[in-house]
Amino acid sequence: MSGREFFTTRTVVQALAGFRPARRTTLEEVPLDDALHRVPAADVAAAAPLPGFAKSTVDGFAVRAADTYGASEGLPSYLDLVGAVRMGVPPSVAVRPGGAVAMPTGGVLPDGADAVVMVEHTAETMPGTIEVTRPVAPLDGVVRADEDVAAGAPLVPGGRPLRAPDLGLLAAAGVTTVIVRARPRVAIVSTGDEVVPPSTGQLRPGQVRDATASALAGLVRDAGGEPTIAGIVPDDAGALETTLRKALQDSDLVVVSAGSSVGTRDETAGAVAALGEIWCHGLSIKPGKPTLLAECRSDSGDGIPLIGLPGNPLSALVVFRVIGVPLVWRLAGCSVPPPEPSVPACLTRDLPSAAGRLDVVQVSVRDGAATPIFGPSALLSVLTRADGCIVVPEPATGLPAGSQVQVMLYR
Amino acid sequence: MSGREFFTTRTVVQALAGFRPARRTTLEEVPLDDALHRVPAADVAAAAPLPGFAKSTVDGFAVRAADTYGASEGLPSYLDLVGAVRMGVPPSVAVRPGGAVAMPTGGVLPDGADAVVMVEHTAETMPGTIEVTRPVAPLDGVVRADEDVAAGAPLVPGGRPLRAPDLGLLAAAGVTTVIVRARPRVAIVSTGDEVVPPSTGQLRPGQVRDATASALAGLVRDAGGEPTIAGIVPDDAGALETTLRKALQDSDLVVVSAGSSVGTRDETAGAVAALGEIWCHGLSIKPGKPTLLAECRSDSGDGIPLIGLPGNPLSALVVFRVIGVPLVWRLAGCSVPPPEPSVPACLTRDLPSAAGRLDVVQVSVRDGAATPIFGPSALLSVLTRADGCIVVPEPATGLPAGSQVQVMLYR
Repeated sequence: MSGREFFTTRTVVQALAGFRPARRTTLEEVPLDDALHRVPAADVAAAAPLPGFAKSTVDGFAVRAADTYGASEGLPSYLDLVGAVRMGVPPSVAVRPGGAVAMPTGGVLPDGADAVVMVEHTAETMPGTIEVTRPVAPLDGVVRADEDVAAGAPLVPGGRPLRAPDLGLLAAAGVTTVIVRARPRVAIVSTGDEVVPPSTGQLRPGQVRDATASALAGLVRDAGGEPTIAGIVPDDAGALETTLRKALQDSDLVVVSAGSSVGTRDETAGAVAALGEIWCHGLSIKPGKPTLLAECRSDSGDGIPLIGLPGNPLSALVVFRVIGVPLVWRLAGCSVPPPEPSVPACLTRDLPSAAGRLDVVQVSVRDGAATPIFGPSALLSVLTRADGCIVVPEPATGLPAGSQVQVMLYR
Repeated sequence: MSGREFFTTRTVVQALAGFRPARRTTLEEVPLDDALHRVPAADVAAAAPLPGFAKSTVDGFAVRAADTYGASEGLPSYLDLVGAVRMGVPPSVAVRPGGAVAMPTGGVLPDGADAVVMVEHTAETMPGTIEVTRPVAPLDGVVRADEDVAAGAPLVPGGRPLRAPDLGLLAAAGVTTVIVRARPRVAIVSTGDEVVPPSTGQLRPGQVRDATASALAGLVRDAGGEPTIAGIVPDDAGALETTLRKALQDSDLVVVSAGSSVGTRDETAGAVAALGEIWCHGLSIKPGKPTLLAECRSDSGDGIPLIGLPGNPLSALVVFRVIGVPLVWRLAGCSVPPPEPSVPACLTRDLPSAAGRLDVVQVSVRDGAATPIFGPSALLSVLTRADGCIVVPEPATGLPAGSQVQVMLYR
């Protein structure tokens, strides 16, 4: 974090590269069943090799490969069937030259054998004898004892959220708890004399229920964070500073959805400046210009990132997706957020955009066509009519109708 | 569901179109804070219009548009500033001809006004008078009282999982609880004499810890379901039937990861046949052919879908992603599952595929190139090395290196 720079406008690219607070959440141990999408603090290593024994990958017969060389339909190799391996228990017989042992898929390769012939390439024409009609090479039909994972090798990498299949490999290795970063605690502070809680039944003209906090809480959860709705503060710098100071004590990130009028924006900046260093005040993004990024200090001296969002709910959500979501992942030790759904589509109309500014345009998507949803940004219903958004990058000056675009889909 | 058809192989397209159990989960009411990704049973309608009052979308001055017609920099309209609207409270003044009232963004439009001039197009050169330098049309700078959502109009559609922005619109409308479908309860039964719980410390040669159940539980959670790990059953048709019968009583879907050898596959089919109707036994998918789909009956006569998965963990997960995940969403009343992440990539090598069979190939993705991960399907580590998979559809006979493919990414 650099020094004090007030009222500095930055691009989104600058903010993503430069606003990188050092804070990480604490470590905690969670059961495997609760570890989905949690971020391991470090590589999780295998205590023992996997599968741990040489096993058959097919139903067939364990053999010495050399005994099958030259075998064909016309001139099969004849081998003595000396026993059968049962699932889950060590073999009771070994394979000597000229011998074979019946194998289930997943069975332990008996001593002396170095390959398994698929049952389809054999025939049992006489009791106690099998014909092998195709040669096998050593290790055909076999997984070696450490072929899946060697002892000490990483099962899953640190810093990447655990996916469902990862849980399978960890379970196979006997890992039943994982040390992960705690979920980032994100305090969501709403401001505005006009803003009332969603539970308010009857509104007075001029009042609006707090839409942003609930939607932000959803985005925080999607990013693996734990949201706390810290309440609504009137347009008063003193009250805001008090609420922010309190939120800083037990949060990893503080998000303020600021008042949307000019005066309240300045109040937010004033309150934040008293609590830490403003990194930028103004972001080259549309919608979302009146964004503020800061690093504040808790009473114990910890650096806590703070995002001041525009008052308009749509703008606030756009900025939080672009700047806040990667930050929540980062606080949990994840350097590359997991992929979001997207779909290629054909733009149905021209999209103007100013160079040097990132434009985020809400779109509906039908049959491969992306149609921008315009209208006053004050409309909340755009939020639910949009299937996703298109990002027009900073250098571009717009996209013509017919452009192939990638739509980031909401889920 | 059609009648008894044993040992019938179906294509994936047939299974997705034809295996459509009628069962839906029960309804429950959840607080808005817990409603993310839950599926509303029906459209949620607005009780009152939103925003509920005509409001300003800019900082500026409420006026009668007609008073600004013809205004320009050179010949501004002069209007009497008769008051100011404060956020969150009804206006205390009205706008008469020739008058103007100062407006914050989001303020209530006073009686008599029909537009708001942006502050940028005005000047206050004398106390009590403003100059308007650009004309406005009626409704410029204004959102009408029901422009966002009309009373009775849907806020969010039924049958689509709630996204973070949806929670915002519901909060704005004062909706603090939502009636949703209960999370589908998915019982996961593992079978195999060789399979032991993940908590088993030391393995005997031949034993494997249950990898599939933990990974399936993760996929079930990702699909909005509630997994129950129902334990490990030895390869014994009687024991399996008993466990399945029990699981059917309090589940919306039963998933069996069957033994991988020929004999145990038949045992699973036998146990399932005693509990309901087998819809298909064999699916034209690679990996995953030994898949079984059935509709069983609970003791109370409810039809409960059952998926018999291959014993190989990788195959089991591939089939569950393709067949099971849409089914879990469907049980919750969601006809179109939410989008999964995907990325376009260039295939680095030829992929052979048989026509009439859906091939699912695990790939790693680097810098826009998708590299297939081959090797024995018995390897669990493929699960964690893969960034996603490519689906080669049933009619295709393979893809040449250099093909543009869409990789379904794991998250």
